[in-house]
Amino acid sequence: MSLVVVGSIAFDAVRTPFGERERMLGGSAVHFSLAAAFFTDVRVVGPVGGDFGEDEYAVLQDRRINTDDIERVPDGRTFFWRGHYEYDLNTAHTDDTQLNVFGDFQPKLSAESIACRTLFLANIQPDLQREVRAQCKGAELAGLDSMNLWIETERDSLMRAISGIDIALMNDAELRMLTEEPNLLRAARAVMAVGPRMVVAKQGEYGAALFTGESVFALPSYPLETVVDPTGAGDSFAGGFLGYLDAHPGELDDRTLRRAMTYGSVLASFNVEEFGTERVSRLTTDEINRRFEEFREMTQIETVPVEQDVFQS
Amino acid sequence: MSLVVVGSIAFDAVRTPFGERERMLGGSAVHFSLAAAFFTDVRVVGPVGGDFGEDEYAVLQDRRINTDDIERVPDGRTFFWRGHYEYDLNTAHTDDTQLNVFGDFQPKLSAESIACRTLFLANIQPDLQREVRAQCKGAELAGLDSMNLWIETERDSLMRAISGIDIALMNDAELRMLTEEPNLLRAARAVMAVGPRMVVAKQGEYGAALFTGESVFALPSYPLETVVDPTGAGDSFAGGFLGYLDAHPGELDDRTLRRAMTYGSVLASFNVEEFGTERVSRLTTDEINRRFEEFREMTQIETVPVEQDVFQS
Repeated sequence: MSLVVVGSIAFDAVRTPFGERERMLGGSAVHFSLAAAFFTDVRVVGPVGGDFGEDEYAVLQDRRINTDDIERVPDGRTFFWRGHYEYDLNTAHTDDTQLNVFGDFQPKLSAESIACRTLFLANIQPDLQREVRAQCKGAELAGLDSMNLWIETERDSLMRAISGIDIALMNDAELRMLTEEPNLLRAARAVMAVGPRMVVAKQGEYGAALFTGESVFALPSYPLETVVDPTGAGDSFAGGFLGYLDAHPGELDDRTLRRAMTYGSVLASFNVEEFGTERVSRLTTDEINRRFEEFREMTQIETVPVEQDVFQS
Repeated sequence: MSLVVVGSIAFDAVRTPFGERERMLGGSAVHFSLAAAFFTDVRVVGPVGGDFGEDEYAVLQDRRINTDDIERVPDGRTFFWRGHYEYDLNTAHTDDTQLNVFGDFQPKLSAESIACRTLFLANIQPDLQREVRAQCKGAELAGLDSMNLWIETERDSLMRAISGIDIALMNDAELRMLTEEPNLLRAARAVMAVGPRMVVAKQGEYGAALFTGESVFALPSYPLETVVDPTGAGDSFAGGFLGYLDAHPGELDDRTLRRAMTYGSVLASFNVEEFGTERVSRLTTDEINRRFEEFREMTQIETVPVEQDVFQS
């Protein structure tokens, strides 16, 4: 199977209570790709500048991620983000954003990318998300992420973008903001009412929840003693989730969706253990399998069939 | 088996976006008792005033809760709390607190209460919690709740109270505040380091997590489309949790603890569906069993043994 992601490719400068990095590979499309590549063939689409070199390409290509549709602007500079996190690590504080080549980005997908079965529209301007969706109208499964900025400034375009996809993957706070509905179940239903078949609410340290027309599935996050850098956790989740779904075409049954949610959570949990892409770059499938099993152990109420309890008469 | 709870018995005035009540039965010991009574014999200890009448006693006695240790002060008035919730329902805003008879409360437990196997110290002044624990030193299992007020004003006494119990059940924000540790896993370990065998972090709409020396278990909250009144949800959780544990003496094995967590979550989910004690007062064991099963369905990653997935080579 095959999956194409369109989003940002970036250099990040990040400071957390556990250290800092002045310049490291980042961006939503990068974190997503590295996670998804464990499960399926991935093509990444996004702009980079002349400062994007062999080392950066190598991180992607070492995972067999196809970089042919990365648009390199030799006399431009790659998107740059500088941010920091306080001790609670829940909120990213942006100190500097330099759009650079990303400011003029007009996605042009190759025939190979257009032919991919699965499409992920990472968090970019909603007009661009709609353009890409129109180019990839044959994709069987399309997911989308967004953020508060676009809800505030481009709400109508964002709602149209959402109406054209299958799965919305957003932070729970942003789902509430988008729908003006403080109850998450109602917020998810409001999003499904405009088109998507399902909604994934990413809840940071509290995990993630999947809403379909019929059911709800909720999974806590992996309990880590030290979260070093939360940057990219949501994109790693989306990569694990959609990567697994792309590798298992056919019915989106509960079993497949729940395993996909778990792999998303597994990938996100590794992502935050170190800065940027450092941990996921050297992650192994054995490690993924072990943590999947840990998730199962941590969440199952019981292994045996449920008996009725004896209550006080 | 038998369980005694010491805490507040109150009249509450509550306003939420879904309605209001001017005066209804409430208090931590009441919500706890009504939940625990589904599983075991419960004795409730706390003070009431002359305004606490037959109707209020009947709510408890209809569930066979023993009220012999309710201390009635005929010329006093029952503890009164007035509060409201905004649309997000996550924060209780206190508009009025009248301690009344609760201000002079000195717990005096009968021999029958002292002989109970399980003790719950609901959220009251930590010195009182320690006095009660000293009276009930034979209790095999003791749980405790607290709140930000006592962390701010009585931290030393609260830490001593915690050091003498088996299970701390607190809001996750309060666990972080108490231990000055933003990471929840580290916060739970810091609490266990002073005495308790385990910690339950109540996470409101995100569910609850159980930390023991060996393992973590996390459970989401039940997805309700309408939460009418969150007052008492934490105490209902504690009642379901400790009530189940009291009814299943012996090893605190994973299976028992996880079922207890689930019953706690079930009881809390019913509690918030209506105002005050209205929903739990008429709750049935069939309804509890059905929702337990819904929790299992909502959280299990899969029913069949885990297979290894095929990854990209």
